[in-house]
Amino acid sequence: MAKSLTSSYKKLMEKEKNLFILGSAGAIVHWDMETKMPPRAIRLRSLQLAMLSRIEHKMSTDPEIGKLLKETMRQPEYDSLDTVQKRNLYLIKKHYDEQTKLPEELVAETAKQEAITIDVWKKAKAAKDFSMFKPELEKLFDLRKKAAGILMEVKKTATPYDALVDIFEPKMTAESISKVFAELREGLISLIKKCEVAPKQPDISVLKRRVPIDIQRKIAESLTELIGYDIKSKEAGGRIDETEHPFTTGYYDDVRITTHYYEDNFASSIFSTLHEGGHAIYEQNLNRDWIFQPVGTACSSGFHESQSRFVENIVGRSREFWIYFLPKLKELTGNILSDGDLDGFVHAVNQVKPSKIRVEADEVTYCLHIIVRFNLERDLFANKITVAELPQIWNQRYKEYLGVDIENDSEGVMQDTHWAGGLFGYFPSYALGNIFSGQILATMEKDVPDWKNQISSGNFQDVKQWLTKNVHHYGNLHDPADLIKRITGEEVSVKPYFNYLYRKYSKLYGF
Amino acid sequence: MAKSLTSSYKKLMEKEKNLFILGSAGAIVHWDMETKMPPRAIRLRSLQLAMLSRIEHKMSTDPEIGKLLKETMRQPEYDSLDTVQKRNLYLIKKHYDEQTKLPEELVAETAKQEAITIDVWKKAKAAKDFSMFKPELEKLFDLRKKAAGILMEVKKTATPYDALVDIFEPKMTAESISKVFAELREGLISLIKKCEVAPKQPDISVLKRRVPIDIQRKIAESLTELIGYDIKSKEAGGRIDETEHPFTTGYYDDVRITTHYYEDNFASSIFSTLHEGGHAIYEQNLNRDWIFQPVGTACSSGFHESQSRFVENIVGRSREFWIYFLPKLKELTGNILSDGDLDGFVHAVNQVKPSKIRVEADEVTYCLHIIVRFNLERDLFANKITVAELPQIWNQRYKEYLGVDIENDSEGVMQDTHWAGGLFGYFPSYALGNIFSGQILATMEKDVPDWKNQISSGNFQDVKQWLTKNVHHYGNLHDPADLIKRITGEEVSVKPYFNYLYRKYSKLYGF
Repeated sequence: MAKSLTSSYKKLMEKEKNLFILGSAGAIVHWDMETKMPPRAIRLRSLQLAMLSRIEHKMSTDPEIGKLLKETMRQPEYDSLDTVQKRNLYLIKKHYDEQTKLPEELVAETAKQEAITIDVWKKAKAAKDFSMFKPELEKLFDLRKKAAGILMEVKKTATPYDALVDIFEPKMTAESISKVFAELREGLISLIKKCEVAPKQPDISVLKRRVPIDIQRKIAESLTELIGYDIKSKEAGGRIDETEHPFTTGYYDDVRITTHYYEDNFASSIFSTLHEGGHAIYEQNLNRDWIFQPVGTACSSGFHESQSRFVENIVGRSREFWIYFLPKLKELTGNILSDGDLDGFVHAVNQVKPSKIRVEADEVTYCLHIIVRFNLERDLFANKITVAELPQIWNQRYKEYLGVDIENDSEGVMQDTHWAGGLFGYFPSYALGNIFSGQILATMEKDVPDWKNQISSGNFQDVKQWLTKNVHHYGNLHDPADLIKRITGEEVSVKPYFNYLYRKYSKLYGF
Repeated sequence: MAKSLTSSYKKLMEKEKNLFILGSAGAIVHWDMETKMPPRAIRLRSLQLAMLSRIEHKMSTDPEIGKLLKETMRQPEYDSLDTVQKRNLYLIKKHYDEQTKLPEELVAETAKQEAITIDVWKKAKAAKDFSMFKPELEKLFDLRKKAAGILMEVKKTATPYDALVDIFEPKMTAESISKVFAELREGLISLIKKCEVAPKQPDISVLKRRVPIDIQRKIAESLTELIGYDIKSKEAGGRIDETEHPFTTGYYDDVRITTHYYEDNFASSIFSTLHEGGHAIYEQNLNRDWIFQPVGTACSSGFHESQSRFVENIVGRSREFWIYFLPKLKELTGNILSDGDLDGFVHAVNQVKPSKIRVEADEVTYCLHIIVRFNLERDLFANKITVAELPQIWNQRYKEYLGVDIENDSEGVMQDTHWAGGLFGYFPSYALGNIFSGQILATMEKDVPDWKNQISSGNFQDVKQWLTKNVHHYGNLHDPADLIKRITGEEVSVKPYFNYLYRKYSKLYGF
């Protein structure tokens, strides 16, 4: 019996390995499309990507997987597995159910509608006309609602929306997120007000100085070196390229980041490099023993974001970081920034300023953008509001939370691509990532009390090692709320993040 | 009946389309490995490539293809197909047979032995020790001989070796090639002797001037523009990158070339860019109506080489080309080459000098390197010689044909990777390409009598259009000897190539 178990489990893991290998090959083809592909190739490329995902879908819905899962989960065999093996089984089953329980026509129709909606979204955004977008978004939303209803049954979540959230943030629910986000919203709004009326205000003119792209490339390289993301040596497992929207992709020994360089906004590439670098070192430092296993992947989208925001904001926008890096930056930029003073510079890169566009938001206002979206998604799936009402409620909430007036729907409800692509349930992960990063920081400070001094002398080693040992290495062994508890000893909580923000911004703004 | 035919043919072509799409995706992953991949990723990459070729092999040996082939080839349905459709069927059947008639164990064992032999070859080459290489090469050769024997039955060729040659140069035989090569060898040896004792000898010192890599990159870009290989515009379907061994890869709208830049040998990147550019414009200008069909691929390896050598040598090393391009080159290189005179420069890039290494050989001596290899391959497969005898015969022939003394087997029989990788039957295509290029030139000169004047004013348009119309557009509609006849009205013949060489080199060397 035990022998047959081993062989079923082994067979299952062999199939998983193949899926990871194929997926990582597809990631290269996708990366190429975003970074290197000649423009004329786009039609061919979409056929290639569609083919690869068709093959991947076929492999991941192979009925043999269902059979092997059943065999391996039988008693007493199941009990002979260790914790890691059991987790692998759990994750494989979860993914298999997500992939197989939806009727094929629904999947096909949704894919088709997503392509249509994305296309219309681009046009509607350019025309600033939500009425163009609305009918297609409604169709797509209905399809996603249907899927969510089926997934709710499979996953036994309380609501359809929870079943979608669970894809990105396993076991988290709209109810628990709502509670956390309500506290977050209140705290952020009050912090923003404090900053607005504070005596010290930043002068951001230094950030507008023109820095040639070639120099910015050298700055980015220097940052990757600092955080231990190797893109240069003969052992390098990463690289940096340019795209309009920065991203990280890849797997273990081949994890690549992208950034963008704007001559009149050098800080943009600095922080996007640090942000993507945070994602990259997470992927690179997953437990090597678990390569090609579901347990050897990142915990959740929120956890991924916690790592990118940790490196970008908690480290990269700290005074200590700039004690070390401002002189370096001055050296790299010649006389362009030679007169910049440390405190002025640190305040400038931490300016708090409510704005309309999520991707341009600062550390303090960012989560409010997310909360607007989360609330709308949640209420949509609960049938409390309709797609038609989105623009109006959006604008209302932006006024209420951020005090800004949305002038048209292109800078409002149509600014993001997510909904047009059928991606509902993803947004909360962005804010959860920030919350997690605060809890992780509070725990790290206990273990590495000297971390700020280290950062000010350009030593990121201990922080990185701590993150690797306490976050990266756990991979997907636990669901996010469990992992937070294991790392910090506490439930998901906004308090540490607030403590961090208040400590930092009260000093910067002098309140 | 006709309806069922159409549907069988359509189904078959749908399967072919999928194969082309998957193959072109695999080409991107391979390209990335050679150009962009972080070094640490090599192990993962080999798994990805193995997976993709496993999937491709499975798709291309799908028994359904065999069934559809049979259905479509039945009378009277078959007669209702047009010439292009019949050619597609022929090519699909040929490939299907090549893929399916070999026993799976033989294919697997060969793949394994190839990997081993390549690995040992690298070590043996570094150690200059053929005895290390010999036993593994023997094993691999035996496996390829077994395969050749089976393919001979399937293809009904006269010898096993012919069955291998047929993969790269369909319908060509060792017998016909031997005849052509004997004439070629004799003519080249006599031409080389004439050059050696000629009154005018080139001064190649100008080619050793150091040209910074950045400038060489601009030169390469300028060359791609000149030959109409677009890598820059918003409609670009190509790009240029750097690798140790230049190559061309891709399909229709995404055809990429690579080159290498040596600071102390700027001519190297110039001619490799032109060479690969010749391959690239062939691929890009295949008949668009035939995309995703076997008929819409290049005719043969030799034909591919005819196009690369045409652009590299016939155009790129012509006096007329340098009338136009030398002033440009001087402009791009500032004062580095400002004193170079046209005739001296043209003679320098056309120096005839017997050497030991194939990839460094000049236009006149190159084919002798190939003939050595072809004769050895042919005699190996005919059991006239053994693997053990290769080094000795190799060295003998090099002395006889090229007058050079091989000092060790690393600069001798172990210089190329082909045999170590199991690639027997490929070498003749290199020389056939040169022969074809001469025949194509002779015909083109009749249709575009003004071509040299055009080239001297930097106009490559008419030549390119002629090549596209008369070579590229035919794709794989005919086997190479048939296509040559269709283009030139003649059988495969060395004479036009000789005429070209004699005309050119008698002028250069003054004999």
